[in-house]
Amino acid sequence: MVKINENYLKLKAGYLFPEIARRVNAFAAAHPDAPIIKLGIGDVTEPLPAACREAMTAAVAEMGDRTTFKGYGPEQGYLWLREKIAAQDFQARGCDVDASEIFISDGSKCDTGNILDIFGSGNAIAVTDPVYPVYVDTNVMAGHTGDANAQGEYGGLVYLPINAENDFTASIPTTKVDLIYLCFPNNPTGATATKAHLKAWVDYANAHGSIIFFDAAYEAFITDPEIPHSIYEIEGARTCAIEFRSFSKNAGFTGTRCALTVVPKSLTVKISDSSEVALHSLWNRRQSTKFNGVSYIVQRGAEAVYSEAGQSQIKTLVNFYLENAQIIRNQLTAAGFAVYGGVNAPYVWVKTPADLSSWDFFDQLLEKVNVVGTPGSGFGAAGEGYFRISAFNSRANVEEAMARITAKFATV
Amino acid sequence: MVKINENYLKLKAGYLFPEIARRVNAFAAAHPDAPIIKLGIGDVTEPLPAACREAMTAAVAEMGDRTTFKGYGPEQGYLWLREKIAAQDFQARGCDVDASEIFISDGSKCDTGNILDIFGSGNAIAVTDPVYPVYVDTNVMAGHTGDANAQGEYGGLVYLPINAENDFTASIPTTKVDLIYLCFPNNPTGATATKAHLKAWVDYANAHGSIIFFDAAYEAFITDPEIPHSIYEIEGARTCAIEFRSFSKNAGFTGTRCALTVVPKSLTVKISDSSEVALHSLWNRRQSTKFNGVSYIVQRGAEAVYSEAGQSQIKTLVNFYLENAQIIRNQLTAAGFAVYGGVNAPYVWVKTPADLSSWDFFDQLLEKVNVVGTPGSGFGAAGEGYFRISAFNSRANVEEAMARITAKFATV
Repeated sequence: MVKINENYLKLKAGYLFPEIARRVNAFAAAHPDAPIIKLGIGDVTEPLPAACREAMTAAVAEMGDRTTFKGYGPEQGYLWLREKIAAQDFQARGCDVDASEIFISDGSKCDTGNILDIFGSGNAIAVTDPVYPVYVDTNVMAGHTGDANAQGEYGGLVYLPINAENDFTASIPTTKVDLIYLCFPNNPTGATATKAHLKAWVDYANAHGSIIFFDAAYEAFITDPEIPHSIYEIEGARTCAIEFRSFSKNAGFTGTRCALTVVPKSLTVKISDSSEVALHSLWNRRQSTKFNGVSYIVQRGAEAVYSEAGQSQIKTLVNFYLENAQIIRNQLTAAGFAVYGGVNAPYVWVKTPADLSSWDFFDQLLEKVNVVGTPGSGFGAAGEGYFRISAFNSRANVEEAMARITAKFATV
Repeated sequence: MVKINENYLKLKAGYLFPEIARRVNAFAAAHPDAPIIKLGIGDVTEPLPAACREAMTAAVAEMGDRTTFKGYGPEQGYLWLREKIAAQDFQARGCDVDASEIFISDGSKCDTGNILDIFGSGNAIAVTDPVYPVYVDTNVMAGHTGDANAQGEYGGLVYLPINAENDFTASIPTTKVDLIYLCFPNNPTGATATKAHLKAWVDYANAHGSIIFFDAAYEAFITDPEIPHSIYEIEGARTCAIEFRSFSKNAGFTGTRCALTVVPKSLTVKISDSSEVALHSLWNRRQSTKFNGVSYIVQRGAEAVYSEAGQSQIKTLVNFYLENAQIIRNQLTAAGFAVYGGVNAPYVWVKTPADLSSWDFFDQLLEKVNVVGTPGSGFGAAGEGYFRISAFNSRANVEEAMARITAKFATV
């Protein structure tokens, strides 16, 4: 008899965003004329930069001529893209990251899930609470947890609460953990990390032989020069950290699909026979065997991000969303909400009014003002009573959504 | 201390194609003027069909306007693509496959590897020998095997030899196996399966509660109307088979990246508490959690394959490669080689001359006539003494390669 992976059956309900889509679709079906504004899923809305489009159009044309046609590319990504990333995203900030340590992929969601392929069972795993659900669910699916309790917390995971009381920075654990997920600027809270905070994590990881999974998907939103963009700005990170980055939010690639993962060659783990194994070689083997590289056309689009025009265009794009975040912060603060994040980050994290639960506030916003956000409890038990509002939308929609929310829910 | 997945350390040497690339690069570096012709990796060479390019160029333009911009798409793929696949690839052949049972992905290599995520350990796994290495290596990485022996065979796998003696059709196993990998038209031997042969497998699987992974990546090369294109042409397959398909070889998408997997909703497995679980819901959960869909631009390109122009263009493309295969077959047969496959398939499977080992013949071909093929032993122990020659190249290169080989290696 075939055995399935019964760990999947431990997963609670649907993944957060499909559940949101289900409720929104049901409401829209019942109220077909409701002018719904979505500030929920964190999906970008503005056009792809012209530099990226021009590069992709040219790449499509190359595919039409056998002398410039491209078949299978390197599973790791084309070197011309990896070299530009190494130079402009890392070396320009003083990070010692080589092109050969960069792996191009079709998404950070894939990479943060697939990275578990190269790790064994028996690791103690720490996540913040609230947290991007993919980190937790992929560990459940891989059999690294027990069952969920009534709050949706899985046995065996170490949850590090982040909330207004600790300024949304997790305490360094007192127990020993092996794998640590950090995301800065943070999804969902919009919090950022100082160099000192990241240094404490790097020191902890190096002292305990732990590994940090650093998700920097939102680094482009950092405008404060004191805030680090990469974990590799921190001394010692090359022996304890893997970094994930994406073109989804800086260049609007959520529907175009391109991301990257950095695995330093100096990152090694001692195995059961006491020899050292480089995680770079394991990830290279994983990607070579289970992946065939990102579309040539898309990689040319990503490369254009690093041209002079591309850099200017993504800066305009990011600034536009940051201005949205500022509007959301200002409007909700003036209306009496307790508001966090939204500075150096595209997410605003809001305390629900009148102690409503996250899902109750979700339903009220949807029903009373036809605005969709994301319930904080969907990101973990400690997110209960909070709500995430995304700055990814048109200016008109953001202003209209804020006008509707403040008109209905203002307490001052 | 962090635990890694030590199963990776059981893998023998590099994955086959990187090893070929290594030898070719070393030879090219030593002989920079050698006119190397590559008939090795099975990568297409001819331009992408115009219909696909036009659709992708239009899709890139849509990305430039916020009213037609596309962000995250459905993880399962856009319905307009899945509906065309269901209608034209399956329903038109009498296969009962619904659009909701189709999952769009960025490659069959990914899907055939990732599918193991939803299965547990303890399954008996059968592969043909020779076989596409990804099936074996992904099982090794998932911990489903023991160590490799001197012939490269992994403990715990059931190898089903296919060779000239059994007409390259594996015998139905006498022992019980749970998961069975079948690939027709076959990579690497170019063999095809009759309906009667597939029916015997489907009957075996349904009788034993086994599941067939059916890789139909090369179905477009079937011209004989008696040969089935899909496992779902066989009665009973909907309760025992998952099918993988790709746009790589029919439409030249090896560098563009699009594929699909069919998981029938009627395919269920009994779990430890005796309830039935649908594999469709597990795969849907896997893809929703660990994947973010294929690039919108690429999906529009794949959709164009189903237009009238697209259908005509891919037929021309496939016929071109089939003519190459015919030239390879004719030339090598005339030169005294024992030749298999290459009819209804893009691969020609050749017995090495003078009982050379597969890698020795590889080296001789490379060094003496600067032609690259694929050593049969790279596909498994029973491939030793065979050699795969791919029809994926220009007409001029195929003719030149055959002229060189026959001039140097002809025995008649």
